[in-house]
Amino acid sequence: MESDLLRWLRTRLPGDPRAPLGLTDDAALLELPPGGRLVATTDLLTEGVDFRLAECDPRRVGRKALAVNLSDLAAMAARPVAALVSLALPREGGLALAKSLYEGLLPLAQEFDIAIAGGDTNAWDEGLVLSVTALGAVGPRGPLRRSGARPGDWLLATGEFGGSLLGRHFDFVPRVREALLLHERYELHAGIDCSDGLARDAAHLAEESGCGLALRLDRVPVSAAAVERAKSSGRQPLDHALGDGEDFELLLAVPAAEARRLLAEAPLDVPLTCLGEFVPERGLWQATAAGLAPLAATGWEHRFA
Amino acid sequence: MESDLLRWLRTRLPGDPRAPLGLTDDAALLELPPGGRLVATTDLLTEGVDFRLAECDPRRVGRKALAVNLSDLAAMAARPVAALVSLALPREGGLALAKSLYEGLLPLAQEFDIAIAGGDTNAWDEGLVLSVTALGAVGPRGPLRRSGARPGDWLLATGEFGGSLLGRHFDFVPRVREALLLHERYELHAGIDCSDGLARDAAHLAEESGCGLALRLDRVPVSAAAVERAKSSGRQPLDHALGDGEDFELLLAVPAAEARRLLAEAPLDVPLTCLGEFVPERGLWQATAAGLAPLAATGWEHRFA
Repeated sequence: MESDLLRWLRTRLPGDPRAPLGLTDDAALLELPPGGRLVATTDLLTEGVDFRLAECDPRRVGRKALAVNLSDLAAMAARPVAALVSLALPREGGLALAKSLYEGLLPLAQEFDIAIAGGDTNAWDEGLVLSVTALGAVGPRGPLRRSGARPGDWLLATGEFGGSLLGRHFDFVPRVREALLLHERYELHAGIDCSDGLARDAAHLAEESGCGLALRLDRVPVSAAAVERAKSSGRQPLDHALGDGEDFELLLAVPAAEARRLLAEAPLDVPLTCLGEFVPERGLWQATAAGLAPLAATGWEHRFA
Repeated sequence: MESDLLRWLRTRLPGDPRAPLGLTDDAALLELPPGGRLVATTDLLTEGVDFRLAECDPRRVGRKALAVNLSDLAAMAARPVAALVSLALPREGGLALAKSLYEGLLPLAQEFDIAIAGGDTNAWDEGLVLSVTALGAVGPRGPLRRSGARPGDWLLATGEFGGSLLGRHFDFVPRVREALLLHERYELHAGIDCSDGLARDAAHLAEESGCGLALRLDRVPVSAAAVERAKSSGRQPLDHALGDGEDFELLLAVPAAEARRLLAEAPLDVPLTCLGEFVPERGLWQATAAGLAPLAATGWEHRFA
């Protein structure tokens, strides 16, 4: 950790910032809840692919680098414990950039009461790369997995979908509190966070569970941003909702009776919607009056030349 | 994780590689030893700073990205449990490069019996970045810290120092086994791994412990590579040993009587040397016949413009 950045971080973190940052030792020491299991996740953001510094405030980039990992912990209903932050910074203006990134990241870490338990800050002659690893503690009910959905389960989703590029992909609140509350109070069979796209991530849930999923397209909560995007894209708002990705909402497989109870009790501040039902036939389907029709799992994947 | 890389990894990892890679869920699930505490560390390597792909085999780069983290775990006498690997790959040839990196990294993971517990593989239009986070379990004797050295303790070091750029900075074996064995059988007060440079890292130990350190420069084990480097650098082999860094040897503070016993028993396959003694006067000193003289803590630090 570069010493100027450290001095600055000292003014931003309570107590001795070297300790949570793992700078007094070669690694950070973490105390875990007794008997707990751990989940670990990592995401890497690169300039030009995940963001363009010329077009956005670096504080939003720093915040997002942590938020996407918290969203992964939420998908497994794990309580965030700590995060490690590695930065490859352009040599010119690197220190100021690092400060801005942390100015966005630290308030989110404080909001979710997690330690920044280490970091590696490097300078080089190319673009900005942020790599964040987050650790979460699994509660007594165990982790929420992708593989537990069963035919007959309902697919429930938090929030709305589509058009996240208009801003939400930076400013979303990871559904950590929602996942912990639902996992504690209700019987959930499986979960995932929506990063690659609603259709694609919903298909992941079905695939990992060895079954299929029939989506009710008329029920998909289409965001205002999806409608806005459709005005210039030549595509339908629903297409944006199904395929844009980076909504970072929760998709949950819930037994039908439990799902009815959950929707009736509406225990969250965010809306919850039933988007369809898991079915025995593998694959992603569209539920129509005439029966099931195939549906493409559109979404995002990194491509190599 | 890009699907072609995943297919390839399937052929290299025992069992279902999606599970250890965290690809069946949003995060990887880790079982920790009961009652154990965890240490976490992260290091990021960038092309042009830490390596030049034009000059070295990418397998050595992949191996190093994990090895430096294992060395950090060794410094705290923690048993490696898992690692998470994030890659920013140049778009052109990215898949082949990723395979080569893993071909270097995976054998080291297997040698130290750790799970690759997650990953994020991204393509972009700039240079290669590797970010590895490693997790280690702390044993019943607790972690080895930097802050426990006391005046009168001896400074012991494994191996030899200097000239690591000639090859050792890639091919070193992290001193995990040595650290675990010594921490179990002997009373160690403090430890660090030598990455920034012998003088600088030894000074870190003293500084974190609130004391000073008197080095016996005549006792520093100067490597053959340091002698080789000195032939063209215009500097002394000892300067290389003190300042080059990336030796990844262990530096340990050991009570004098225990250090004598340790050196007599010589329990390791690698040489152990006494390099000096911790002293009450803060700072880094050179022990001479005439007493203590100040010594500069030379070494490596990332610099920003």
